[in-house]
Amino acid sequence: MTAGGRGHAAILVGRSPGLATRLGHLAVRRVGGRIDEHRAPAPPKAAGSAPSAPEPPRAADGTMMLLRMNMRTALAVLCISVILLMLLWNRCGEFSHRPISSALSNALSEHGGEQIECLINGEYSVACRRERDQVYLPFSFIQKYFEVYGKMTNTDGVERFEWSHSYSKVYHPKRRYDPRGTFATFENYNVEVRERVKCISGVEGVPVSTQWEPRGFFYPTQIAQFGLAHYSKNVTEPEPRVRVIEDGERHSEGWIVSQDATLTRELDQELKARVLRFSTADHASSQVWLKVNISQDFVLSFDARLKPNSSVTAVLQNKDKKETVYLHYVASNQLIYAQDDHIYHGIGTELKWRRVTRDLIIDMQKGWALQDRPKRKSPRNKFKISSLILSGSGAVGGIRVSSSEHMAHFFAAANWLVRRQRARGGWPVAARRHVAPGASDLRPGWHSAMSQGHAISVLARAYSRSGKEAYLRAAQRALLLLDVPSRAGGVKATWMDRYVWYEEYPTTPPLFVLNGFIYTLLGLYDLHVIEGENSISLAKKMFDDGMASLKTLLPLFDTGSGSFYDLRHFTLGVSPNVARWDYHATHVNQLYLLAGLDPDPILLNTAKRWEGYMQGRRAAHN
Amino acid sequence: MTAGGRGHAAILVGRSPGLATRLGHLAVRRVGGRIDEHRAPAPPKAAGSAPSAPEPPRAADGTMMLLRMNMRTALAVLCISVILLMLLWNRCGEFSHRPISSALSNALSEHGGEQIECLINGEYSVACRRERDQVYLPFSFIQKYFEVYGKMTNTDGVERFEWSHSYSKVYHPKRRYDPRGTFATFENYNVEVRERVKCISGVEGVPVSTQWEPRGFFYPTQIAQFGLAHYSKNVTEPEPRVRVIEDGERHSEGWIVSQDATLTRELDQELKARVLRFSTADHASSQVWLKVNISQDFVLSFDARLKPNSSVTAVLQNKDKKETVYLHYVASNQLIYAQDDHIYHGIGTELKWRRVTRDLIIDMQKGWALQDRPKRKSPRNKFKISSLILSGSGAVGGIRVSSSEHMAHFFAAANWLVRRQRARGGWPVAARRHVAPGASDLRPGWHSAMSQGHAISVLARAYSRSGKEAYLRAAQRALLLLDVPSRAGGVKATWMDRYVWYEEYPTTPPLFVLNGFIYTLLGLYDLHVIEGENSISLAKKMFDDGMASLKTLLPLFDTGSGSFYDLRHFTLGVSPNVARWDYHATHVNQLYLLAGLDPDPILLNTAKRWEGYMQGRRAAHN
Repeated sequence: MTAGGRGHAAILVGRSPGLATRLGHLAVRRVGGRIDEHRAPAPPKAAGSAPSAPEPPRAADGTMMLLRMNMRTALAVLCISVILLMLLWNRCGEFSHRPISSALSNALSEHGGEQIECLINGEYSVACRRERDQVYLPFSFIQKYFEVYGKMTNTDGVERFEWSHSYSKVYHPKRRYDPRGTFATFENYNVEVRERVKCISGVEGVPVSTQWEPRGFFYPTQIAQFGLAHYSKNVTEPEPRVRVIEDGERHSEGWIVSQDATLTRELDQELKARVLRFSTADHASSQVWLKVNISQDFVLSFDARLKPNSSVTAVLQNKDKKETVYLHYVASNQLIYAQDDHIYHGIGTELKWRRVTRDLIIDMQKGWALQDRPKRKSPRNKFKISSLILSGSGAVGGIRVSSSEHMAHFFAAANWLVRRQRARGGWPVAARRHVAPGASDLRPGWHSAMSQGHAISVLARAYSRSGKEAYLRAAQRALLLLDVPSRAGGVKATWMDRYVWYEEYPTTPPLFVLNGFIYTLLGLYDLHVIEGENSISLAKKMFDDGMASLKTLLPLFDTGSGSFYDLRHFTLGVSPNVARWDYHATHVNQLYLLAGLDPDPILLNTAKRWEGYMQGRRAAHN
Repeated sequence: MTAGGRGHAAILVGRSPGLATRLGHLAVRRVGGRIDEHRAPAPPKAAGSAPSAPEPPRAADGTMMLLRMNMRTALAVLCISVILLMLLWNRCGEFSHRPISSALSNALSEHGGEQIECLINGEYSVACRRERDQVYLPFSFIQKYFEVYGKMTNTDGVERFEWSHSYSKVYHPKRRYDPRGTFATFENYNVEVRERVKCISGVEGVPVSTQWEPRGFFYPTQIAQFGLAHYSKNVTEPEPRVRVIEDGERHSEGWIVSQDATLTRELDQELKARVLRFSTADHASSQVWLKVNISQDFVLSFDARLKPNSSVTAVLQNKDKKETVYLHYVASNQLIYAQDDHIYHGIGTELKWRRVTRDLIIDMQKGWALQDRPKRKSPRNKFKISSLILSGSGAVGGIRVSSSEHMAHFFAAANWLVRRQRARGGWPVAARRHVAPGASDLRPGWHSAMSQGHAISVLARAYSRSGKEAYLRAAQRALLLLDVPSRAGGVKATWMDRYVWYEEYPTTPPLFVLNGFIYTLLGLYDLHVIEGENSISLAKKMFDDGMASLKTLLPLFDTGSGSFYDLRHFTLGVSPNVARWDYHATHVNQLYLLAGLDPDPILLNTAKRWEGYMQGRRAAHN
């Protein structure tokens, strides 16, 4: 660990091709100034003469004249050059274990510093630099030792090193939280791009998770987050651009029908709109297609009523590379299948009208991920939709391409929640979950308070938007499991037999995960407000009980320099589970939000202190 | 914050007298090797010729011959020297904001590095160094930001920088804790040297604290620690050197009796030993004195029965400076008084035999502190006892000087505890104590579980050593307050109505101070063992209850990178009170000790994890 700088320097000089030839010019410009500035001990006259030394002779230059000059001057210049050379070389501060006289040592380390061994806690060594009375430690060590972050930046040609204590960001709420508005900071979430989302189900329109089960399963927390993120984006983003391709009013004239295929327009009694009825023969060249040229916007939606294995295909083309990707939406029950540039999503086999809304870019990326092909960076800039293809037989209508269809995705989530809610009011998770050593595994069929809470937040918004009672009733039913202890299949823990806690992961012993608990509280708040703020509701009672627990136990999550993700150290007697910065930032965001709803100073004070931790501040020691 | 290195360098070169003249030798020796090692781009032949260049010409040297040499060679050497000069100068890496071509930039910063601005969390800047791809941060910043420690060391001429995460030390117990042996790690304690100890009372032989009350008061925790430290030192230190000056058997012939004074030896009926009876006239020159010359050992003890204002004086002389300090032990009730080199300790006015044991160096230092004179470093090496003086009238005997008298100090503490114990079994603290904002002040007369526990530890040892029942009974009586709630003048808190906690500071709301609680548990353990390990005792029951609390609540003191001093963040809802490293080390020492008494893995696991925190390790984050 104490390797000197010698080896490094040698390698580096070797690495700089053309360096010697380029130095002539620079050297002349710089040396004069430097010698003056540094008050080098060499006589000023001699030093001054160095820059005006003749152009260096080149061995290959035959025109070089044999100069006659005073030998004494030449030798003096030479000598001074050598002295300066030595001086500089030494100032560059090679590491030396030999003690040298103090004045000389000063001079040696004066500028470039010298390497010095740093012995870390008597355990290992790190190569540091010393310059005068200051020791400098390499960031690579500091970064690892303290887990901080840093990078070089360049602003207007000025290079700086930017040190960050954490990598996460706090969002200060601009207004009081409202259950009809954005959910927490979810307008910043993109659930579907996460790697643990296998794809968006063509049948259900909601994400399929691979987080604890590689085959994929419907994870209600993720589905609700998908819904809440799209709901929130719908609130914060400008109106989407919508381009109608084909609907009851307008239709494209450019549909090309191949020889064995048919295409007719007719009024559909169910949709009460004119639709395209198509039929193609059973070979690949028989199809109905429409050439389009759509950049920027990639959310395709359409109504479809297809016979089995019939499909609607969107063709994406890479604008530069002429790469072509086929996204097939097939009347099948297969979730997703991909081979090379053909990606298939099943949209169900039932012969009925269904509306399909797909983010083509997401679908393409998920198809690539399935084949372990690397994800593309910002593909939205590189691709365009080049055509739509109809195969098999069936009918389509209401075809449009938009910049976004957030409410469609949101209602897909809300409707999934209504459809899939069980008799106890829950959405059981089908995957087995090992949460912490020492805690029981969660067996398939477990419930999560966070799922329940998030679902309530989705359903409350869906009810508020649509006025449909089914959403409200589903939200209210979702409360039931919050009052059922974890051991009985519910999600309720009680801290010291006194404080209720809605468990994101209802293990035995309990874990008291903080962020999931607060999200559950938000669901309760949402429902209570949607029910009418003056109502005396179960949601209100559960919210109040939970807030009492939160305000009591919140300090136990404070590490003095961050926060704990849960209280497993208390319940399992193990090493604490510190929250990584993104979870810590979530805690802070949540507390700021709650501080707008409840004046108890512990919420705002804790939020502020915890935000400070992200800037490197710490609680005082005694 | 971005000041370049230029100014610094200029100043430093200016500071190096004689540098230029010394460089000639060094330069020649070093350059040959360096150029080779660094594979400088200059041709090897030319580089090799540089060291063998002729002695530099001096302007004043008239004997210098005009050399004739091939001009082309001279110029080539000159040129290469200049190139190397430039190269090196640049490698020393002045800070430049101007972007330069990458290969050149590499070469410039390759070795000496350049200054670069580090922007810390977007809040402020620190001047750092950059060398190649590595950024180096000044330790002065790291030290303040993370509160770590470091210093330059020099071992066998090798300078290193030693980085310490904490400044404290953990003592791994060598054997199972035994109530008859050392108390915890107290053999390392020196209670009386602490600044908050005003002096050792001449009447009581125990320390007087100024911690929360500048006039001084008897703080039972401190007195017990004084006793336990001396008891522990008596266990671990070798037998003391004892020099008898005057006792029943031996006596000094050198006592000098001035004209108006008398000195006789007689048998004292009470002491059953021959003592010195003396009387001096009421003027300063009338005295009885003995010249001695004792270095190294400074603990003076004697029996005395003095009339009011009579005194025994020990004279200390600084071996170098001939400074003389008079330590007067006076039959008065004044605690301590000092004027210049005369320091007075009252030893009480009652006309009865008392044994006085004084550490003269401590007494001297406390006298100086009283006059705000700076404390001397290692005065034990610089002073000697030069004489003893008797003034007034009375009798003295059993005079001796020892290297230590630990058991005398220990029993002084034990006897004070027996004498001063109140009816409820406690030792009320006379000082008002403000512990934490938000918690009630402790009003004079408060009790401390730590006082009770430490007192029990002293008394158990005193009983074990002496067999005197009074010590045992006092220890047992001390239990009573541990079962009285803080609100009722006792020291008991109960966490969540379930877990008992013996409070070092019995505030409302409670604080749950960790180290004081564990010390209390040790007192309970001591008493239980001394009573007989198979006894069914109150101490045993209280110990078991306390251990159950400790094992449950211990995780709440874990910060993931250190420990909390108390749980005020939970009980008061304030910022956590992180334990500074010496308290953290105390926690670790205590846990290792308890892990030897109780096999529950949480004790040993926590001790190990917490010890790791002192080396910079941290609990994992998720």
